[in-house]
Amino acid sequence: MSRESAFIAMMRAIASGPAARGLLDDAAVIELGGEALILTHDMMAEGIHWLPHASPADVAWKLVAANLSDLAAKGAEPLGLLLGYSLSDAQWDMGFAAGLHDAVGHFDVPLLGGDSVGDAGGRILGMTAIGRASYRPVPARSGAQAGDILYVTGWLGDAKAGFDLENGADEGGCSDAGRLRRAFKRPAPRLSDGRALAPLVTAMMDVSDGLLIDAQRMAAASNLQLTIDLAHVPLSPDYVSLYGDNTDSRIEAASWGDDYQLLFALPNSVEPPVAAVKLGQFDSGQGLKLTDNGTATALPARLGFEHG
Amino acid sequence: MSRESAFIAMMRAIASGPAARGLLDDAAVIELGGEALILTHDMMAEGIHWLPHASPADVAWKLVAANLSDLAAKGAEPLGLLLGYSLSDAQWDMGFAAGLHDAVGHFDVPLLGGDSVGDAGGRILGMTAIGRASYRPVPARSGAQAGDILYVTGWLGDAKAGFDLENGADEGGCSDAGRLRRAFKRPAPRLSDGRALAPLVTAMMDVSDGLLIDAQRMAAASNLQLTIDLAHVPLSPDYVSLYGDNTDSRIEAASWGDDYQLLFALPNSVEPPVAAVKLGQFDSGQGLKLTDNGTATALPARLGFEHG
Repeated sequence: MSRESAFIAMMRAIASGPAARGLLDDAAVIELGGEALILTHDMMAEGIHWLPHASPADVAWKLVAANLSDLAAKGAEPLGLLLGYSLSDAQWDMGFAAGLHDAVGHFDVPLLGGDSVGDAGGRILGMTAIGRASYRPVPARSGAQAGDILYVTGWLGDAKAGFDLENGADEGGCSDAGRLRRAFKRPAPRLSDGRALAPLVTAMMDVSDGLLIDAQRMAAASNLQLTIDLAHVPLSPDYVSLYGDNTDSRIEAASWGDDYQLLFALPNSVEPPVAAVKLGQFDSGQGLKLTDNGTATALPARLGFEHG
Repeated sequence: MSRESAFIAMMRAIASGPAARGLLDDAAVIELGGEALILTHDMMAEGIHWLPHASPADVAWKLVAANLSDLAAKGAEPLGLLLGYSLSDAQWDMGFAAGLHDAVGHFDVPLLGGDSVGDAGGRILGMTAIGRASYRPVPARSGAQAGDILYVTGWLGDAKAGFDLENGADEGGCSDAGRLRRAFKRPAPRLSDGRALAPLVTAMMDVSDGLLIDAQRMAAASNLQLTIDLAHVPLSPDYVSLYGDNTDSRIEAASWGDDYQLLFALPNSVEPPVAAVKLGQFDSGQGLKLTDNGTATALPARLGFEHG
């Protein structure tokens, strides 16, 4: 049995639902609101699907064509594409972008989004998640209004603490190192909080790259100024037992990612329906400002995780 | 500007539709049949998002959690996941599968499909395509009936010829080498043919790995025997000018992938509404059989492209 066959056999045991079609088909089919939604994910690898001297524009074209061909086999109308891209040299990236532009224009299919990662020479994994939202508007990073309050759903910094413990940091007086390790290794997306919040928020996003950088992105998308008070950054007792409760430890917790808490804006008059902590306030203007117990303080040089 | 920022700026110029939200959000939103469909694709790279000594089960969990967290930020209910996986060593693959099994069970989200590729040490790209089909049942590989006729939409082997020309093969008496090169480098998915065929076919798939291997998959999924006559394999005049019109050249064309033609089954009484060629017939029984001008002939050792 080839490595691929062995892996597919393992996946088949996991993908047991009807929409997966036993992984025997080129695409999955979900029934949704009277429509049949067709979903496919195809990959291409250098040295296997194309030779190193191939034109990156042609590689982009073929990646689009191979995916759309799976839709063609279902008689489906294309609705859109998501791209998973490993960054390489700038010249290759530009050629790829040119070919992608040609292909999405030629096949009249919109590029909807995706992700890109640096390539450190190891394994690269991608995943697409599909969901359904039943109210409008669907929350976005943009949409916060001047006067809105910024909240976060839970402790920040636990993933950082778990990372440090996994990499040999002393557990010291920490009462529940296992919980911190799990916060890093097995994070929990805030799905039910998100559903409860969605009808109320003016803006929402998850904290994946770090509170400060993600909050700055929300403020920029909403075209507002945002002031966060460091003293309000919620730290767990376990985090405090390792790093103390001071300005530096709060900045560290606020600029580390992987906590997957929800960051959201609510009008001043609205109370959040889930456990959440007030971090600051949106005002007219631009940019992220920090205070520490009400006193203005400088932004750290690094607000969070950025690729590339 | 980081490489990632530069790449995202190029993608933003391509992703100009409203559902892409200017690539400023964590997820795309498509309105479909009264539902808001939420789509996100997140990647993780070894050495960047996880350290080489990390548990593969934890990596799988985090890949799921990070993607679902983007849905949480939209207040969305998860409908499913597609996985893009680079095969590595069997031990790591097994650990990853175990973690994936845990995560999809814990978050109650179905794995719907995806793709896996070998890692030859170069770039790895992934793409998700989303489509909509407006009739039922949506065509599958399974569904062909005994007595059905197998068809293919166009010439086979042109991508192979284009590949050979790109890699220095002599153009010889070929009258349109450019067309063959384009067939390999810029293939065209048969989207409109697929839509015309979908209401009529009993089974359909695209020829991406090679006619013989893909036809064998259709026969297996339909639990039938399939007989293909090599003499019916449609070859272009350009292909014939390079490789001749003989049993070997037909087997070569029938076991090379990348042509992206549609392979489909129709009841004997139904004429295809698009240009297509009869290749053979389904009967009760099992397996793929070959004939050459009506005389039984052996299957080649290699039916098409297989990974791993």
